[in-house]
Amino acid sequence: MNRFLIPADLGDLKKALEEAKYVKNNPFADQSLGRNKTLLLLFFNSSLRTRLSSQRAGFNLGMNVIVLDINKDGWKLETEHGVVMDGDKAEHLREAVPVMGQYADIIGVRSFAAFENRDYDYSEPILKQFIEFSGRPVISLESATRHPLQSFADLITIEEYKKVNRPKVVLTWAPHPRALPQAVPNSFVEWMKIADVDLVVTHPEGYDLAPEFMKGVKYEPVQNKALEGADFVYAKNWASYNSYGEILSKDRSWTIDEAKMALTNGGKFMHCLPVRRNMIVSDGVLDGPDSIVIPEAANRVVSMQVVLKRMLESLNAK
Amino acid sequence: MNRFLIPADLGDLKKALEEAKYVKNNPFADQSLGRNKTLLLLFFNSSLRTRLSSQRAGFNLGMNVIVLDINKDGWKLETEHGVVMDGDKAEHLREAVPVMGQYADIIGVRSFAAFENRDYDYSEPILKQFIEFSGRPVISLESATRHPLQSFADLITIEEYKKVNRPKVVLTWAPHPRALPQAVPNSFVEWMKIADVDLVVTHPEGYDLAPEFMKGVKYEPVQNKALEGADFVYAKNWASYNSYGEILSKDRSWTIDEAKMALTNGGKFMHCLPVRRNMIVSDGVLDGPDSIVIPEAANRVVSMQVVLKRMLESLNAK
Amino acid sequence: MNRFLIPADLGDLKKALEEAKYVKNNPFADQSLGRNKTLLLLFFNSSLRTRLSSQRAGFNLGMNVIVLDINKDGWKLETEHGVVMDGDKAEHLREAVPVMGQYADIIGVRSFAAFENRDYDYSEPILKQFIEFSGRPVISLESATRHPLQSFADLITIEEYKKVNRPKVVLTWAPHPRALPQAVPNSFVEWMKIADVDLVVTHPEGYDLAPEFMKGVKYEPVQNKALEGADFVYAKNWASYNSYGEILSKDRSWTIDEAKMALTNGGKFMHCLPVRRNMIVSDGVLDGPDSIVIPEAANRVVSMQVVLKRMLESLNAK
Repeated sequence: MNRFLIPADLGDLKKALEEAKYVKNNPFADQSLGRNKTLLLLFFNSSLRTRLSSQRAGFNLGMNVIVLDINKDGWKLETEHGVVMDGDKAEHLREAVPVMGQYADIIGVRSFAAFENRDYDYSEPILKQFIEFSGRPVISLESATRHPLQSFADLITIEEYKKVNRPKVVLTWAPHPRALPQAVPNSFVEWMKIADVDLVVTHPEGYDLAPEFMKGVKYEPVQNKALEGADFVYAKNWASYNSYGEILSKDRSWTIDEAKMALTNGGKFMHCLPVRRNMIVSDGVLDGPDSIVIPEAANRVVSMQVVLKRMLESLNAK
Repeated sequence: MNRFLIPADLGDLKKALEEAKYVKNNPFADQSLGRNKTLLLLFFNSSLRTRLSSQRAGFNLGMNVIVLDINKDGWKLETEHGVVMDGDKAEHLREAVPVMGQYADIIGVRSFAAFENRDYDYSEPILKQFIEFSGRPVISLESATRHPLQSFADLITIEEYKKVNRPKVVLTWAPHPRALPQAVPNSFVEWMKIADVDLVVTHPEGYDLAPEFMKGVKYEPVQNKALEGADFVYAKNWASYNSYGEILSKDRSWTIDEAKMALTNGGKFMHCLPVRRNMIVSDGVLDGPDSIVIPEAANRVVSMQVVLKRMLESLNAK
Repeated sequence: MNRFLIPADLGDLKKALEEAKYVKNNPFADQSLGRNKTLLLLFFNSSLRTRLSSQRAGFNLGMNVIVLDINKDGWKLETEHGVVMDGDKAEHLREAVPVMGQYADIIGVRSFAAFENRDYDYSEPILKQFIEFSGRPVISLESATRHPLQSFADLITIEEYKKVNRPKVVLTWAPHPRALPQAVPNSFVEWMKIADVDLVVTHPEGYDLAPEFMKGVKYEPVQNKALEGADFVYAKNWASYNSYGEILSKDRSWTIDEAKMALTNGGKFMHCLPVRRNMIVSDGVLDGPDSIVIPEAANRVVSMQVVLKRMLESLNAK
């Protein structure tokens, strides 16, 4: 396994979920795998959960972990080809990436959508340069279009809390003061549509996700109808894909509150965090007994540890 | 032991001082305690000594250590209840704290007084949320009202350097260009008044510490009189408690210099550092043979290591 | 070995190069040396390669590693003597340095030239205070006048790639939009002139390096003539030493391109990185088969690991 961006990188999803259970029950069992191996976590954007859970997963596997806030601890990196570098960017990714590959065994990269140009964001130029030039296994720590460690952790959490074989999972848009990327909902849909769940997506007009993600997924425009009988309610804001990066609505009638949760089948509330209280979700739901956002966050260590374990196994097999 | 804020958290002070001696002589003897345990050091404010000495203490005990500068590496955290989070704060402490608890085994938190509201500062809202919601042992790395790791290190240092059974210890206010919190003098008084020392506090008018700290403590308004026969002179600036956060004096006649030290009983000069030269203390005293600020700083590893050792023992006993 | 600033600190250069080969082939062989030892890496200026390669070298030797961005994670440090510290600098190096020495076993320091005063920069006040007051072995991670870890890595790389016993090595100035320190070229000249190479330096008028470095070194004013028959071309920009810190030329006819490399003896292209593409060197040369900048950067781990290994051996011998 030499990259982690999409569910297919994990191969069989059932086996991956079994491995997640094993890792969770035996967090320190495979430390010999990580001995003398260095994990480099590179952040072009800030992070709390991803940073801490990835460090922890690396420690659990006996790795050395280096965290680098690029653009802050380092310097501004040029990503375009053929330019005369006479401006404020001190280094080109084309050198920085293979150099970092010389100092690390596995590289995790976080790089959000810039929201300036949809084609640019969706072509994932930064992540692709790491895959092409680093010479090392690369893990997405959330890129412009996807957040696979989050979605894998979400699926692990659903597995743990589901009461029926094939639970109904509703992804609902909810309001937020800022323009947020589509990475989390894109990945969520991408993972859930191949998992053993009944997925329904609901959002206001103009908030369609990219067609390559929504292909084959049920869409219900009326939020209350979508929530009926839901076993899991996954709330998330995102900015428009069609009017790229725009905020078309801050309609708080989409906020998930106790009345909406009453429509579900005793549904559990999920969110990737950080969450805006009383915008995305009411205090009552978030602090109530059906909120599973904290165990969901805890599973971020598990999803990362499964990925690292597989990569280390591949490295050690060489 | 699941929190460290006040001397009572250590139980018997004599035993704690004996354990400090043991830890100092055997820094690497208890590494099995920290195996597979992660210490998270969280800084809402900058730090040099606390950061480095805490990392070192964690390493000495075989722990993994994560340092996180919150508000900088992370994001702005909301602390108020019931708000609609439509501003610049991306996450509520109510989620961030239990999430961090999922990734760490012991959490250290630094959060200074904001000096906007005395009641708010003295109610320690941030530290209290960590204690209430993290589910982990919590160590104060200096909060609005106390700096217990410093005061414990101060006491260890006094134990090492004292020449009489019950030394005279003088805490004296000294001038500084900025408004500084009362955390260090509060804690110092809190620890010294239960230790085997004769404590005297001296400061200009208007600089009384909070009554709950000063209760039962000798106060001498004339600095030179206070210094007479002192075995230890602990200089420190703080802003006013009564005119909360205000600078009432920058009177450099309170600066500790060679003439003042001559009034003491060959007294040792102490300061928690960082220290403003020629404001708090003259170059001559600070660079002279009776300055023990460096060994005092070195004991910051020892005080932290005793606290971590006890917490790890409690965790491993579960 | 208790400091690393100049080649003489390594003693016999041939032996050091043999040790580099050993370290490269056996990166994890000496981990018992670093057990319970802490390496503190202190950055007054940003870093990518030095930071990551030094962390990696420390890990390879089993050390604990602390990275501290001073002036950012910490606070502003006063360096002058005798001042009344009533301004924005919270702490004097005179305390900060010995305190850091209490928490670390080996200290690496990066502190660039400030370009305000040549005598000040060239007297290396910060590095000297660490050597004088830290009580620990000190490694330059690039100071105002030298970058010895880079030059040692450069020499290791030349050893690996040379096809003749005594290769011709050309150090050539090249244009850059900003004023850069002389540390890299100073050190490069200092190391190459005692190594088994034929060194030639070329640069435009006004770009002479300090006489103490250039003494005994061949200088050729015409770049094309210097490049004739070169086995290694080391390009680098620096600001003027005589008109201290000034940019006298941005002449892109000094940029290394394919035509210039055609003058050499199938020469290898070297640069310490980060490099400005199409200012210092053309895309074609940098991406071509004779560019060895990535293995050169990889050898930064090796040079640091040799230095750390020797220092640890000295510490453990005590």
